[in-house]
Amino acid sequence: MKLNINKDFEHPIYLQIYNIIKEYILKGKLKPNSKLPAVRSLADANNLNPSTVVKAYNKLEEETLIYKKVGSGSFVSSSKDIHINEDYDDFVNKRIDSTQMNLENNINFASATPSHDLFPIQDFKKSINDVLDRDGGKAFDYQNTQGFIPLRKQISDLLFSKNISSSYEDIQIVSGAQQAIDIISKIFISEGNKIAVESPTYSGAIASFKERKALIYNFDININGINMEDFEDFVKKNKINIFYTMPNFQNPSGVKWSLENKKKILELAKKHDFYIIEDDCISELNYFNEDITTLKSLDKYNKVIYIKSYSKVFMPGLRLGFMVFPKSLSAKIISTKYSSDISTTGLNQRAFDIYLKSGEYDKHIKKINYLFKKRFLIMKKLLKNNKDIFDLMFEPKGGLYFWVKYKKENFSNFIYKSRVNGVSLLPEKYFNLDNKNTNSLFRLSFANANFDQIKRGMNVLISLSKNDSEDNIQPIV
Amino acid sequence: MKLNINKDFEHPIYLQIYNIIKEYILKGKLKPNSKLPAVRSLADANNLNPSTVVKAYNKLEEETLIYKKVGSGSFVSSSKDIHINEDYDDFVNKRIDSTQMNLENNINFASATPSHDLFPIQDFKKSINDVLDRDGGKAFDYQNTQGFIPLRKQISDLLFSKNISSSYEDIQIVSGAQQAIDIISKIFISEGNKIAVESPTYSGAIASFKERKALIYNFDININGINMEDFEDFVKKNKINIFYTMPNFQNPSGVKWSLENKKKILELAKKHDFYIIEDDCISELNYFNEDITTLKSLDKYNKVIYIKSYSKVFMPGLRLGFMVFPKSLSAKIISTKYSSDISTTGLNQRAFDIYLKSGEYDKHIKKINYLFKKRFLIMKKLLKNNKDIFDLMFEPKGGLYFWVKYKKENFSNFIYKSRVNGVSLLPEKYFNLDNKNTNSLFRLSFANANFDQIKRGMNVLISLSKNDSEDNIQPIV
Repeated sequence: MKLNINKDFEHPIYLQIYNIIKEYILKGKLKPNSKLPAVRSLADANNLNPSTVVKAYNKLEEETLIYKKVGSGSFVSSSKDIHINEDYDDFVNKRIDSTQMNLENNINFASATPSHDLFPIQDFKKSINDVLDRDGGKAFDYQNTQGFIPLRKQISDLLFSKNISSSYEDIQIVSGAQQAIDIISKIFISEGNKIAVESPTYSGAIASFKERKALIYNFDININGINMEDFEDFVKKNKINIFYTMPNFQNPSGVKWSLENKKKILELAKKHDFYIIEDDCISELNYFNEDITTLKSLDKYNKVIYIKSYSKVFMPGLRLGFMVFPKSLSAKIISTKYSSDISTTGLNQRAFDIYLKSGEYDKHIKKINYLFKKRFLIMKKLLKNNKDIFDLMFEPKGGLYFWVKYKKENFSNFIYKSRVNGVSLLPEKYFNLDNKNTNSLFRLSFANANFDQIKRGMNVLISLSKNDSEDNIQPIV
Repeated sequence: MKLNINKDFEHPIYLQIYNIIKEYILKGKLKPNSKLPAVRSLADANNLNPSTVVKAYNKLEEETLIYKKVGSGSFVSSSKDIHINEDYDDFVNKRIDSTQMNLENNINFASATPSHDLFPIQDFKKSINDVLDRDGGKAFDYQNTQGFIPLRKQISDLLFSKNISSSYEDIQIVSGAQQAIDIISKIFISEGNKIAVESPTYSGAIASFKERKALIYNFDININGINMEDFEDFVKKNKINIFYTMPNFQNPSGVKWSLENKKKILELAKKHDFYIIEDDCISELNYFNEDITTLKSLDKYNKVIYIKSYSKVFMPGLRLGFMVFPKSLSAKIISTKYSSDISTTGLNQRAFDIYLKSGEYDKHIKKINYLFKKRFLIMKKLLKNNKDIFDLMFEPKGGLYFWVKYKKENFSNFIYKSRVNGVSLLPEKYFNLDNKNTNSLFRLSFANANFDQIKRGMNVLISLSKNDSEDNIQPIV
């Protein structure tokens, strides 16, 4: 097996091997349970040191992409057969994207969660130990299904400062925003129900809606949200249950809905009787003091279910978020949370409560705002300086990513080569309903890359785009 | 409002008030948003000190059963209206049952999870701090959706010692057994599908199956499991997708399936093509070295999905468990876990991994086995000594509870008075499909009550059963 390895590139060779074989496995070029070349033969065929191949194989094994049988060699894992299931393809890629964070020399423009050096571990460790000293066993007992009451009270107070008036009785703690979407789907969506989403949008939401066998209709995002006339036309003719939106710094476009459209969608929700899921993943990252009015704060008809995730602005592995729901939904939401996982783990809820109270959370948000704004500005500048290659679809004023069009030929090859050279991106197929790359669009995130990495990564992308034709790698994205 | 308070009883008066009003609220005698009597008037009407009433109201507020409005008094919370929804009734009661653990003088025979003084907090705290020192931010990054690999490898090794041969690729870490049931329901059950369960059985499973609009058929538990002829007859005529069972020390009956029936059900699963969910909630608590062969260890046809919960034998608030699945289900299970909550929180998984490796878990299981066996024996003896009142339906050899028939008249009154007098039980309606108390059965658990409390609690139950007719409380269960 001859691999296309670039020995001059700063990217370590074992990671290049790892990336190439990973792609082969994920894309089905290497079939499940098929045998990989022996270490020595792969090393010989590519003029490499066997220990480099061993290192790559170890990394592949660590990620469960391959397994070893003593005495007979290495084999492709069966559970990684991405041809089994479209959703699974999506999932595998996501998982890879997040694990890529750990590779020293990779530059991750794919993930929209902060790199873990930004996590306030020491402060949070203190909160955890404070909880254990204060609450002892109570932290590990069954928790209130709706969530730890002091935490809910504190969140309710914080929301008040954002013009959302709620009681702690209207708040459900969830194990991350994905669970909130899942709970709402369980309550409101049965097979054949119609729901509407923005396009592009968050794939985790799509996955939940598809699982419930919803009929999903998408509305193209524009600079002010979506085309309200088209949408109104649609809901006049079609009964929808749910409209799912991220009105402030939408994922992946970065678009912020205009206040006018925010008001209009609420009127339509009232008139045509549907609920709006407002997924507020990232409005804290507002670099230019834009008006980020939430739909929930304008919601006089009780049509908005507001979801807040702490994954993008705090720590994703904490699996903590909340939703604010109209009072009439209380019983259903709590009982559905109960049958989903009984309650969210007590230790994390209690530690986060202490952390919030300490004021450290606010300091953390200020700190990452400062940092991300710098990253935002440099990435935007590098995009604008290369208008022959990149088209910035919208000009976001906050958030963690840009939605970009690749203006040259052969988009698939560009994405593929970027990956093999250690720069990962998320092409549009991860954000649309038919999972296709038709418009040469991709999301470029700076959440996980520092200032230097942004410059280096952008240089790789720019240089790759310039020698498109010289490369003989078969595009397989 | 005149309350039926017993001032001679050892149970504190404020807790009696609290219990009575709680019952009124839960059972709808006090309507949502209705005003409670003013503290002084309630105190006067019952010859009580106002501070006692305040204490009871505070306790009610703490549990969100009531809320206070400055200047206008106390009101029944709206979200606690148990008449809204049958499932919610179930949920509220469960929540109450678990929070009751915290009341100093209550005796909780309802909950089947250990009281938190049995949790090994100091050892586990050490594991948590070891994780934070070792892994730093990685513990709070997105985790592998299938679960932390070293933990899965360790579990796979432990399973091998129980004759279950699995690779870590066949293991999915879940946020508690309830989530495993929920994931399986999502994959296998669509509206109108048929599934079979034991009767009585675990209500959390029923809730998940009902949510998917399954048609649920139940089979009465007997001393050897269920009647296999009836069951075979049924599956010959009806295509079922799933049979849900707890074959070792079943909840709530304590029954252990015979080996013959275990083998038989596997043959039927193969022949009639359904999956068996084996919920192993408690087989570690095996006081007399019984044969507790799991279905999974006998599963040569790949028809068993094995679920292991750590809630009953370790700490419920950790929200940690796992399932072992047939390889063919891998892609579906992982992608469904992803859309449920992306992954289980990293800190708990990693700390539990360290805790398991340290050998402390095994010591903990030995310790609680010793303790629970003592409780088991005293409770069994007290039941047997009062055969005029209690009928022990089966004679379990392990687990945490007894399934008991109340032989006297007026079962509802007995349950109600027990609660008001601080002893909580779970009547059969929490374990059957139609949520009814028709056979005067209840589950009596000793998980949450120590040796002394068992004796005291049983004395209360016995004495209440003896003056049944003298009491003028209206039964409202």
